[in-house]
Amino acid sequence: VQKYIVRKLGEDWIFLVLLGLTMALVSWSMDYASAKSLQVYKWMYGELKGNVLLQYLAWITYPMVLIMFASLFCHLVAPQSIGVYWPQCLWLPSPLSFTTPPLLLAPAASPLLVCSGIPELKTILRGVVLKEYLTLKAFLAKVVGLTAGLGSGMPVGKEGPFVHIASICAAVLSKIMSIFCGVYENPYGYTDILTVGCAVGVGCCFGTPLGGVLFSIEVTSTYFAVRNYWRGYFAATFSAFIFRVLSVWNKDAVTITALFRTNFRMEFPFDLQELPAFAVIGISCGFLGAFFVYMNRQVVMVMRRQNALTRFLTQHRLIYPGAVTLIIATFTFPPGFGQFMAGELMPRECINSLFDNFTWTKIWGAPPPAGLGRSSAWLHPRVSVFVILLLFFVMKFWMSAISTTMPIPSGAFMPVFILGAAFGRLVGEIMATLFPNGILFDGIVYRILPGGYAVIGAAALTGAVTHTVSTAVICFELTGQISHILPMMVAVILANMVAQGLQPSLYDSIIQVKK
Amino acid sequence: VQKYIVRKLGEDWIFLVLLGLTMALVSWSMDYASAKSLQVYKWMYGELKGNVLLQYLAWITYPMVLIMFASLFCHLVAPQSIGVYWPQCLWLPSPLSFTTPPLLLAPAASPLLVCSGIPELKTILRGVVLKEYLTLKAFLAKVVGLTAGLGSGMPVGKEGPFVHIASICAAVLSKIMSIFCGVYENPYGYTDILTVGCAVGVGCCFGTPLGGVLFSIEVTSTYFAVRNYWRGYFAATFSAFIFRVLSVWNKDAVTITALFRTNFRMEFPFDLQELPAFAVIGISCGFLGAFFVYMNRQVVMVMRRQNALTRFLTQHRLIYPGAVTLIIATFTFPPGFGQFMAGELMPRECINSLFDNFTWTKIWGAPPPAGLGRSSAWLHPRVSVFVILLLFFVMKFWMSAISTTMPIPSGAFMPVFILGAAFGRLVGEIMATLFPNGILFDGIVYRILPGGYAVIGAAALTGAVTHTVSTAVICFELTGQISHILPMMVAVILANMVAQGLQPSLYDSIIQVKK
Repeated sequence: VQKYIVRKLGEDWIFLVLLGLTMALVSWSMDYASAKSLQVYKWMYGELKGNVLLQYLAWITYPMVLIMFASLFCHLVAPQSIGVYWPQCLWLPSPLSFTTPPLLLAPAASPLLVCSGIPELKTILRGVVLKEYLTLKAFLAKVVGLTAGLGSGMPVGKEGPFVHIASICAAVLSKIMSIFCGVYENPYGYTDILTVGCAVGVGCCFGTPLGGVLFSIEVTSTYFAVRNYWRGYFAATFSAFIFRVLSVWNKDAVTITALFRTNFRMEFPFDLQELPAFAVIGISCGFLGAFFVYMNRQVVMVMRRQNALTRFLTQHRLIYPGAVTLIIATFTFPPGFGQFMAGELMPRECINSLFDNFTWTKIWGAPPPAGLGRSSAWLHPRVSVFVILLLFFVMKFWMSAISTTMPIPSGAFMPVFILGAAFGRLVGEIMATLFPNGILFDGIVYRILPGGYAVIGAAALTGAVTHTVSTAVICFELTGQISHILPMMVAVILANMVAQGLQPSLYDSIIQVKK
Repeated sequence: VQKYIVRKLGEDWIFLVLLGLTMALVSWSMDYASAKSLQVYKWMYGELKGNVLLQYLAWITYPMVLIMFASLFCHLVAPQSIGVYWPQCLWLPSPLSFTTPPLLLAPAASPLLVCSGIPELKTILRGVVLKEYLTLKAFLAKVVGLTAGLGSGMPVGKEGPFVHIASICAAVLSKIMSIFCGVYENPYGYTDILTVGCAVGVGCCFGTPLGGVLFSIEVTSTYFAVRNYWRGYFAATFSAFIFRVLSVWNKDAVTITALFRTNFRMEFPFDLQELPAFAVIGISCGFLGAFFVYMNRQVVMVMRRQNALTRFLTQHRLIYPGAVTLIIATFTFPPGFGQFMAGELMPRECINSLFDNFTWTKIWGAPPPAGLGRSSAWLHPRVSVFVILLLFFVMKFWMSAISTTMPIPSGAFMPVFILGAAFGRLVGEIMATLFPNGILFDGIVYRILPGGYAVIGAAALTGAVTHTVSTAVICFELTGQISHILPMMVAVILANMVAQGLQPSLYDSIIQVKK
């Protein structure tokens, strides 16, 4: 087998390197553009300080414009979706069942690009042919739409659509290569190309090559060829490497490092007696994850029903995303309700601050210590940290469940990740209050690290929603720390056990709804 | 698929938990016993200080007795091996080729237990039936023989035989469970049980659940069922968890932590300009790994040839292991040649000291700083660190290649890991000499971390010898640090590319020789 791989790799590695390089460039450009957009958003909001009304208008208009632009752009660029009203994008009217032989969907029914990418890819990898799904137009629509969506600060994720983008890239690249060098023939076939594309997509989305490969295996496959593990590993590593080098080159980061690097102490990160708390996080996240999947499906079902409202929304397809954005932006408006749910924080800031090293219940009320940074948004002068965290969790929960149903390219991974982090942080802060002086064991005092709980909660909730265990690996790579490996794996497994017993995974749920 | 897993897991999880629990206990007991044995060895050696001759006798006698005991015990306990002289254990006289249908080997030809376990398991998983391979007697022989081998301080590894032990455990356990509860029927089949056993074996050998699962997938499979990933993950996590809890309970470790925990700075672990050095490590390790496989095979081939020497050794089967031990122990005798190759260090001490935070070329000659610990063995008052490291590498290279051919249960993973660490450390120390003030980039000085180079070298060389990339994951889990993830993955991939082009993997090489 190994020899076979080596012989083939000679022809194959150019493809893998090119794929990795392209996706790294795309991923980095998207991150760059959306970061700039968020910067403009915050600058605008900051400049208008003093006039709350103007501030509010700026706060809601900016994301509304971007989201509606994304929605419109996707609709216009992919002409096959013209005439298909948006609610159809959430499911396929065709009988997409796995027992039937591969189907060729009519173009009119394939405006898939406005949804997350993983369910569709899963369908394709099981042998269903989705026509017009892997075209350059879909690529363009997804890239622009996703960048606008990410730049709006709404709780939409990058991972799902990015997997789709990477798959398109892989499919197109293999076609181009077979034109240019007649020698190159794809040694394995369409499925293998898409599997690698999927791995690269997840891997260079956050710079997590290893977790990306494993996640894409778990999500898309039932039986898996080990050679694809090798190929995915190679391409994803190369891609993540270039992705991180680009940030160094752009002075975003000083050196190659994790995206959400944590700085937990390594000597005694946790004590065995904290394990029940970690188990509670795991089990609760299992229930919460199942509830998230249920809620997301309910929203889709309601929108699918034929009545006056949906007919109206169908005719004016920009109203739904606009209205959702308006509601969400209104709730998060920092001088308004947003002050009770850290509304001013953009998604990535949320993660960074939830993973920080402070114990908020301890510094609450006292003057903020040095190095607190954006975490100060969680410390309301009058309202307890617990209330803020709880409000954040509850509000973001329904916001995430709804915003992923908008007809723009949006993934659920990142919003769920944030939710999990907030939940874990909540448990961590409660633990820190219960044991203000840490846990004494064997002469060593173990101070509670709420940030560590947040990391575990994030891994457990994403694991529960996607029914995967490799979210733990993604977490290690995202944070650059592996000190919490055992409690995290325990929590992820518990969350999976509970969630798998209650609901299908988010991706399977979407596939079912589309049937 | 997920629902199917959930339904089956109800019947399955007891099996997985029991397997994990048993293996954790076995692994921990073996570690405990061999650590005590090494303690006695060192105590004996220390007590005789002053009389070099007695010291030398103690230094060589102790491992010789243990190794010969292990050899004899394995021979006696597994009666089917009686009458089969030991050189046969290194290959099977039967036509074990993959193209032929499953064979039933005659009992007389199955003293397999005295070899590493992974090649045999690979053979079984490809459909060949090795009779008497998975019996309780083989279990007992392997456990006792391996513990004695590890306790002797010889360069033999735990991983290979331990995978065999875990597979026996899995096979026996599934039989027992089908007796006790008639309800329990193995839902998947023999192959799946062995795959999980293999994952648990690697995983709880060093407490690296994730790397264990991935390593066992890469080594044993070509096509892989994702459900086994899940089951292996569960069992290996549980097992590693219990394994680490046992050390906490025994006060070996203060809390659950990595086995060879490193303490590299996390702020700026390395600079981009160090990448060429990492690439050099990767490529060199590719060549070295291929050479190791070649050398190991040559030793076996020489012993296999029929001549007066081998006939003599065949009749007196304890002479070969005794002689090998005598030679190796003589070379490592600390007051003799051992002083130039850190001979006093036991395998685990080697790893810990090679991964340390000091730069030996800087502290060489100066009074030893606090916290140096066992690393002082590398600092000879008159001989340069480079010479010591080089001598260590060269001597241990042939020692490891030969000692894995002894008729005792011995793996090659750990010896190769140590070799790689030494090689990486050598490159790291050279880099630290070339850039004594670190590398200046963008206003930040990056001090060279030779310990980081050692970790990368260890991952690259084991990857090259076994033809896997998941050794990188094992390294992360072993050291508890993921800061060097990208250079390590690059080095491992380069090492694999070179090694796969030159030689089969060590396991495939053994399978070929046995044919």
